[in-house]
Amino acid sequence: VRVETVAVGTELLLGAHVNTNAAWLGERLAEHGIDVVAGTVIGDNVDRIAEALRIAAGRADAVVITGGLGPTQDDLTREALAALAGVDLVRDDALVEGLYARYAAAGRELPLRNLQQADVPAGATVLPNPNGSAPGLLLRHGGCDFYALPGVPAEMRAMFDVSVLPDLVARAGAGAIVSRTLHTIGLWESAVAELLGDLDAELGERRRTDRTTPTLAYLAGAGEVRVRITAKAADTATAQQAIEPVEAAARTLLGAAVFGIDGATIDGRIHELLRARAETVAVAESLTGGALGARLTDAAGASLTFRGGVLAYTVEAKTELLAVDPAVINESGIVSTATASAMAEGVCRRLAATWGLATTGVAGPDAHDGKEPGTVCIGLAGPSGTTARELRIVGDRSRVRAVTVVSALDLLRRRLEESGR
Amino acid sequence: VRVETVAVGTELLLGAHVNTNAAWLGERLAEHGIDVVAGTVIGDNVDRIAEALRIAAGRADAVVITGGLGPTQDDLTREALAALAGVDLVRDDALVEGLYARYAAAGRELPLRNLQQADVPAGATVLPNPNGSAPGLLLRHGGCDFYALPGVPAEMRAMFDVSVLPDLVARAGAGAIVSRTLHTIGLWESAVAELLGDLDAELGERRRTDRTTPTLAYLAGAGEVRVRITAKAADTATAQQAIEPVEAAARTLLGAAVFGIDGATIDGRIHELLRARAETVAVAESLTGGALGARLTDAAGASLTFRGGVLAYTVEAKTELLAVDPAVINESGIVSTATASAMAEGVCRRLAATWGLATTGVAGPDAHDGKEPGTVCIGLAGPSGTTARELRIVGDRSRVRAVTVVSALDLLRRRLEESGR
Repeated sequence: VRVETVAVGTELLLGAHVNTNAAWLGERLAEHGIDVVAGTVIGDNVDRIAEALRIAAGRADAVVITGGLGPTQDDLTREALAALAGVDLVRDDALVEGLYARYAAAGRELPLRNLQQADVPAGATVLPNPNGSAPGLLLRHGGCDFYALPGVPAEMRAMFDVSVLPDLVARAGAGAIVSRTLHTIGLWESAVAELLGDLDAELGERRRTDRTTPTLAYLAGAGEVRVRITAKAADTATAQQAIEPVEAAARTLLGAAVFGIDGATIDGRIHELLRARAETVAVAESLTGGALGARLTDAAGASLTFRGGVLAYTVEAKTELLAVDPAVINESGIVSTATASAMAEGVCRRLAATWGLATTGVAGPDAHDGKEPGTVCIGLAGPSGTTARELRIVGDRSRVRAVTVVSALDLLRRRLEESGR
Repeated sequence: VRVETVAVGTELLLGAHVNTNAAWLGERLAEHGIDVVAGTVIGDNVDRIAEALRIAAGRADAVVITGGLGPTQDDLTREALAALAGVDLVRDDALVEGLYARYAAAGRELPLRNLQQADVPAGATVLPNPNGSAPGLLLRHGGCDFYALPGVPAEMRAMFDVSVLPDLVARAGAGAIVSRTLHTIGLWESAVAELLGDLDAELGERRRTDRTTPTLAYLAGAGEVRVRITAKAADTATAQQAIEPVEAAARTLLGAAVFGIDGATIDGRIHELLRARAETVAVAESLTGGALGARLTDAAGASLTFRGGVLAYTVEAKTELLAVDPAVINESGIVSTATASAMAEGVCRRLAATWGLATTGVAGPDAHDGKEPGTVCIGLAGPSGTTARELRIVGDRSRVRAVTVVSALDLLRRRLEESGR
């Protein structure tokens, strides 16, 4: 069964709200092996909504509509469904009673306008809304099932799970989609695609005869590249079996760049590695200004492995708080592997941590101390000595800082994984 | 001119990413009085993308496509545009050269696959991308302008403002929507709506006879509430005139909670106030773990006013690096106004800053040191003495940290504004 989502609301087109309902529905349907072929957002206009539903019926077997079921003049989903099917709206007595009862219970008088929420296109089924006053609707027309749900996320979600999902799962018949995501740091998206190119091509070839052969997809963001392996099969176990050898092959090709699977975070991985060794980390930040520490304290329980840090944004802070030798800065420069190393060693000693991780660099947009924007040095001090790396990060100030954080964490992650072997 | 947005990416359909590009584009276009008639999300499939573009051309005069311009096999927007127009893809020599130069500058070899980013549908115009490797495209076909932009928000936004918006504004001709956004901190959304309730009702009344009367909208997020005043009129000047008295009335009703307008940031406001007085700030962070410093170094030029800080996640860091008297912690607790004050004073002295700003609290999900999650103390030390506030923040760990950062910055902002009068 192919599904399209249609979100109704001029507010969504104006950007006043982000269409999170579509993302939630997409995720929920994918979990159950149901394909979403398209998503549409359309304004509060009967003709445009009806036309969008007609288009949706052209590419999908079922359409999940969100929004436009409220009590105001702008709520036109009922009218659009009636127009699409060429039927009248009929006022439903049971719904009228329910509305009066609902308002009476709240000690309020029912505004007459709200009675439009009891109007149902002839032939449609009412879908109960346990959490609000707007009932949902199911209308079958032209070989397509139109499910209309309220736009309020909490109401929509509850109704979808009870009144829509079971229908769709039953129609989809047996079948499951299973995904496995490999998280990598240290390779560009294109390098990942290149490393996996032969595997991807081979899978494409095999898919011609075996539809359960997994597909690969690449997702890049802020220094991380994720590889998603997806398999469709008659059941979850078969899909999982199809994924396993592909995951193994991809891991071999990507090597140490893979730091985790399925929603893993690089900071989570570091806490895990440190906890297992009863070790700690402290940070010394210049261009990242606290973003590295913030990342390391994102998750609860960080206090077991994170000792704290120093935001050494100025030269004085580097020399005074981190005891960096001013001669090092004079000779090598503020943005240098020597300074990054000295900062890492300084904070490691200062906070009595096992590992010290330091960042210094030029976030931009202007050059600084003779270095171009995107020039970044990362230092790592630890039990087996100190190392440092110089990076050239492409992008604006915000990207340079974000990639610096991820790269610094990955330097520590790789060292912990190597020394743990 | 009627515009449709088409976002390309199976990821969006699967709900792995939320389509924030559509919301941003909708808001940007509305600001310029341009109607968005529909928004579509479509998967990575040449035929489906081409069909979605054909449908879009049926209801809009211009289509803004985001995504599908990257270097991988899944990036199919170029192919879909060529298929739609019935033309070939032609490799553009200048783009090839640019790609090689870009990779050479980063000291990397260009993966051959990336050359597809230099492919252009015959007859299309290349739109430069100053922040990334994927160029944009403009193709006119069947009376419709198709603008294809990368899906990476920062790249897309910069290109839209330079290469798309001026075109569309020119085509839109007469009619303008003007917005003014007031940014506030310190009031709940419901309190803002309550304070502005009478004004809002009065505007609604006036709008019945005068269509240029502005509307109010409230937007809340991470401790900030924004009030958007929007007026539609024949021209920009008339719309602006309609907004002015409403803005003045809203400012009077909201008082000191307003810290800026139209995209102002609380950190930007603080740097501005500090620069004007040639003063500086340093931070001492416990539960925020660096997020406060990261926020103060978001914008370029922060080094003039930000001295640095200490991430005092542990008790030892508080006593050793910030010289907090252990007796204060023993008597009052780690999460107390007394400790927050001592941290603020410590970092102020330590980094020779004019102002010291400190956070300590329980981010959650578990209670800590006998305090419930969401209990937060903020300390502010400065020339006229030290103050501290205790807050109860509702929400999960991430919200507690985010609201703490904003609240701490607002405490400093209000003090700077009061003492500047």
